[in-house]
Amino acid sequence: MTQELATLLVSCPDRRGIVAALAQVLSGYGANILDSNQHSDPLAGQFFQRLRFDMSELQSDRATLERAVEEVATRFGMRYRLLYASRPKRVAIFVSKYDHCLYDLLLRHQAGELHCELALIVSNHPDLEKVAKQFGVPFHLSLKDAQNKADAEQREIALLDDHAVDLVVLARYMQVLGPDFVGHFDGRVINIHHSFLPAFVGGKPYHQAYERGVKLIGATAHYATKTLDEGPIIEQDVVRSSHRDSIDDLIRKGRDLEKVVLARAVRWHLDDRVLVYSNKTVVFD
Amino acid sequence: MTQELATLLVSCPDRRGIVAALAQVLSGYGANILDSNQHSDPLAGQFFQRLRFDMSELQSDRATLERAVEEVATRFGMRYRLLYASRPKRVAIFVSKYDHCLYDLLLRHQAGELHCELALIVSNHPDLEKVAKQFGVPFHLSLKDAQNKADAEQREIALLDDHAVDLVVLARYMQVLGPDFVGHFDGRVINIHHSFLPAFVGGKPYHQAYERGVKLIGATAHYATKTLDEGPIIEQDVVRSSHRDSIDDLIRKGRDLEKVVLARAVRWHLDDRVLVYSNKTVVFD
Amino acid sequence: MTQELATLLVSCPDRRGIVAALAQVLSGYGANILDSNQHSDPLAGQFFQRLRFDMSELQSDRATLERAVEEVATRFGMRYRLLYASRPKRVAIFVSKYDHCLYDLLLRHQAGELHCELALIVSNHPDLEKVAKQFGVPFHLSLKDAQNKADAEQREIALLDDHAVDLVVLARYMQVLGPDFVGHFDGRVINIHHSFLPAFVGGKPYHQAYERGVKLIGATAHYATKTLDEGPIIEQDVVRSSHRDSIDDLIRKGRDLEKVVLARAVRWHLDDRVLVYSNKTVVFD
Amino acid sequence: MTQELATLLVSCPDRRGIVAALAQVLSGYGANILDSNQHSDPLAGQFFQRLRFDMSELQSDRATLERAVEEVATRFGMRYRLLYASRPKRVAIFVSKYDHCLYDLLLRHQAGELHCELALIVSNHPDLEKVAKQFGVPFHLSLKDAQNKADAEQREIALLDDHAVDLVVLARYMQVLGPDFVGHFDGRVINIHHSFLPAFVGGKPYHQAYERGVKLIGATAHYATKTLDEGPIIEQDVVRSSHRDSIDDLIRKGRDLEKVVLARAVRWHLDDRVLVYSNKTVVFD
Repeated sequence: MTQELATLLVSCPDRRGIVAALAQVLSGYGANILDSNQHSDPLAGQFFQRLRFDMSELQSDRATLERAVEEVATRFGMRYRLLYASRPKRVAIFVSKYDHCLYDLLLRHQAGELHCELALIVSNHPDLEKVAKQFGVPFHLSLKDAQNKADAEQREIALLDDHAVDLVVLARYMQVLGPDFVGHFDGRVINIHHSFLPAFVGGKPYHQAYERGVKLIGATAHYATKTLDEGPIIEQDVVRSSHRDSIDDLIRKGRDLEKVVLARAVRWHLDDRVLVYSNKTVVFD
Repeated sequence: MTQELATLLVSCPDRRGIVAALAQVLSGYGANILDSNQHSDPLAGQFFQRLRFDMSELQSDRATLERAVEEVATRFGMRYRLLYASRPKRVAIFVSKYDHCLYDLLLRHQAGELHCELALIVSNHPDLEKVAKQFGVPFHLSLKDAQNKADAEQREIALLDDHAVDLVVLARYMQVLGPDFVGHFDGRVINIHHSFLPAFVGGKPYHQAYERGVKLIGATAHYATKTLDEGPIIEQDVVRSSHRDSIDDLIRKGRDLEKVVLARAVRWHLDDRVLVYSNKTVVFD
Repeated sequence: MTQELATLLVSCPDRRGIVAALAQVLSGYGANILDSNQHSDPLAGQFFQRLRFDMSELQSDRATLERAVEEVATRFGMRYRLLYASRPKRVAIFVSKYDHCLYDLLLRHQAGELHCELALIVSNHPDLEKVAKQFGVPFHLSLKDAQNKADAEQREIALLDDHAVDLVVLARYMQVLGPDFVGHFDGRVINIHHSFLPAFVGGKPYHQAYERGVKLIGATAHYATKTLDEGPIIEQDVVRSSHRDSIDDLIRKGRDLEKVVLARAVRWHLDDRVLVYSNKTVVFD
Repeated sequence: MTQELATLLVSCPDRRGIVAALAQVLSGYGANILDSNQHSDPLAGQFFQRLRFDMSELQSDRATLERAVEEVATRFGMRYRLLYASRPKRVAIFVSKYDHCLYDLLLRHQAGELHCELALIVSNHPDLEKVAKQFGVPFHLSLKDAQNKADAEQREIALLDDHAVDLVVLARYMQVLGPDFVGHFDGRVINIHHSFLPAFVGGKPYHQAYERGVKLIGATAHYATKTLDEGPIIEQDVVRSSHRDSIDDLIRKGRDLEKVVLARAVRWHLDDRVLVYSNKTVVFD
């Protein structure tokens, strides 16, 4: 029999009985829990859980289950998300001129690694339209300058809402998004920063790394927030560098890093593995 | 109020309702679940769970809780272990002449990294007695040769049982333990193999690695079984090597690897994070 | 002034005076040594050196320099290769149905990471012709079965010779190449093996790794020789795995590994950084 | 025949003929070059070389060779160091209360990994005297407070000079050394910083890392300079962390990192593999 998978992501103030209450409500309505992971932050007093379950033998309709979950959530003061695998997320990729992260995401999607629909590609440059065409994804050119930026972002918000976009991936998008945009998609914009944050915040981090003579370079995928480069970190990785590496070598090594770090963060988000609190993340990997 | 921590480790054939049943029984008697991790192997049809909970507000005595857990276990055909943090495991370290893993374990224990009591050090050579003395751990010399090996192992089993030993760590112990010994401490003997198993099984793996010209060398911590080098793997790691590394360099790099890989495996075992099935492990890290 | 770069790769029995003799002959004719790396294997008694130099102020013609190098080489019993950057290597990529390594090499070439000309793509399946077209590289279908294999390989050798191919890259090519082919391109066929050799030689290594429960999976780039999976290793790397990884997860993680490991090996070969001896490699990275 | 090893470390403005000139002078006096590595920084216009050679068949005395090297150095404007393996460096280890790096260095020295003499251990606390005694290394208590710090450092300089100390290793020494001390031992004081510089400079970096929610923590070994935490970086490494890591876990993981990163930096310095320029390092590893 085919499974009908769903995921429940929960965070709330920690107190006794939460695990049992959630297990009971799901189990009581005939959901079969396949996977359950939990975390508590004793300093923050917060509780986090991810439950993945099969609803194919549910003894009620979804609406009834949803009301029951809502009731538990209210009782424990939970923030939660209940997500059905039958409704994959819709993704918009924002790019400028660098193509490595875009190609990487398109190829991973083609290989079945990313559980999502690629709704559209948005760019402030026409250069990558041909790549979008190769992979059959709609391309929208959205030119911006200092004057029209606020208006352009309002049009982009409308465009994404029209396309029912759930997640925005900034795949080396070289424009800072304003607070309205980031606020509208709060917790749903993933950026790749080409450095090991919080080292080398800001521009040209590979040049900064070369100047400082570091022995490792890194990349950081994080949720975008109103404060540039300071959103919750989802994933980071590094690669060794040495005195033999020119700035071009660092950029080349960095491209490989950026691709894998961004792809991991996007996949975890699409699989509903990431919870945000206190400007950091719990990743149930 | 002080916590009274306990861990329940469970494996059984997978079926619906296990998560809820365990959450209910613990919660029903007043245990507060702090941490819960679960895994299912769909190919093997097996279910695994680790629950860590606080018993300080238990509404019954431990014996009652134990009977209730036993009842659930019987119902679901579970193998399980219920372990109390107030009773740290007692450890015997077996060594020969190499001292790096021994020093490493002693220093980590001294630093509070390993939740256990070091019951004794056993060796087939007198060389490391002075190290045992520096750290105040009893040292037992147990000489062996081909003739007396079976008898010597029987004496070692008796010695370890006298000391109520829960875990035997082979810290580069250069003797093969016989089936009686391994059988007596089934799933409770951890060995460090100085190679990335299953590459270079058997003797002198660093020489083999040098000959083959590999670009990484590894180390593997595993439970000892009757078949040498083939027990369930707990942890592995590697380090880069190159043509510039002599055999001595590989051995030096290997020492560092062996220390960290063995220490991680021992710590996970002591924290009741490891379950064995089908000659492999689930590690709830 | 523009540089005219060349590389001299040397191996010979180790004895005194080699470094000075080579430095002298290059310097004596006006070549400017930019980079010099040397290695000695005391066990094998072998000497290895890579010299990269600028010939833009050469005080003779190239033929004269070549004769002078030849003279030193004869004196010291050297095997050597003298390579001019103005003549990039010509590369043939062999593929079957997996596209990840092919895309990766094509994109790296497009990004300027690989100093070579992509002469052609050869495949025993028609599937990836469309990828070859996207990137404008000629595609040759070369169907093979048990009956016609020897003949087909002779035609492939002729085809590659017609295209003046210097290097054959087996980018997850799922056919074993016969001794004639491998012998014809001795030391010039790079294969990616989807495992951490010498663990899991042969077929389906990810399934083997899953069965064995290893905690790391690896990939190995090596020169193809007549003995399958046993040629000199150029590069290896690993990625962590755990009980949570299904075979599909291992395959997915493996794809990322295979791409980067193969790409590094190809780039090092193209930059004349690799020397082979005793079935292993010196990589001047 | 026994080898008499020496190392020549050279840096100078880059120009043609340097490699040949150095090879010629060493070879001309009967030195046999075993190992030669070279690097050029085209942006800085600087040349660097490390030559290791055997003097056992030298056709002159050392003083004559030294004069010949001096002559070449003057001609090319070189800074250089000529070091004889028969004179191992003398090392002072500075510690406070943390013992992990101290134990690690003592055990590596005992295992023959560090080519040096341990001249003495200096501390501003009496706690680790017992460790010094275990390993038979002289221990000097040098108490300091804000009032007497300058005087105390002068006494420390005198003490180290009395003991003919070549290298000072700050093994988690919790005092900032003043400019006089650092200036006196310029390029000869190695510090381990418990973070991935330049992230989390200053105090309590593991707490900072926890707050920021980073997914990797790091450690950095660098030469001490007058500006705290900003000297030339010799080595760095990282280890993965996650939301499951408490601050204590980060500190525990950090200890392992600090040990290996510091040990690598010290070993490379002792083997004369490190050259400093523009506040960064060339490491001929």
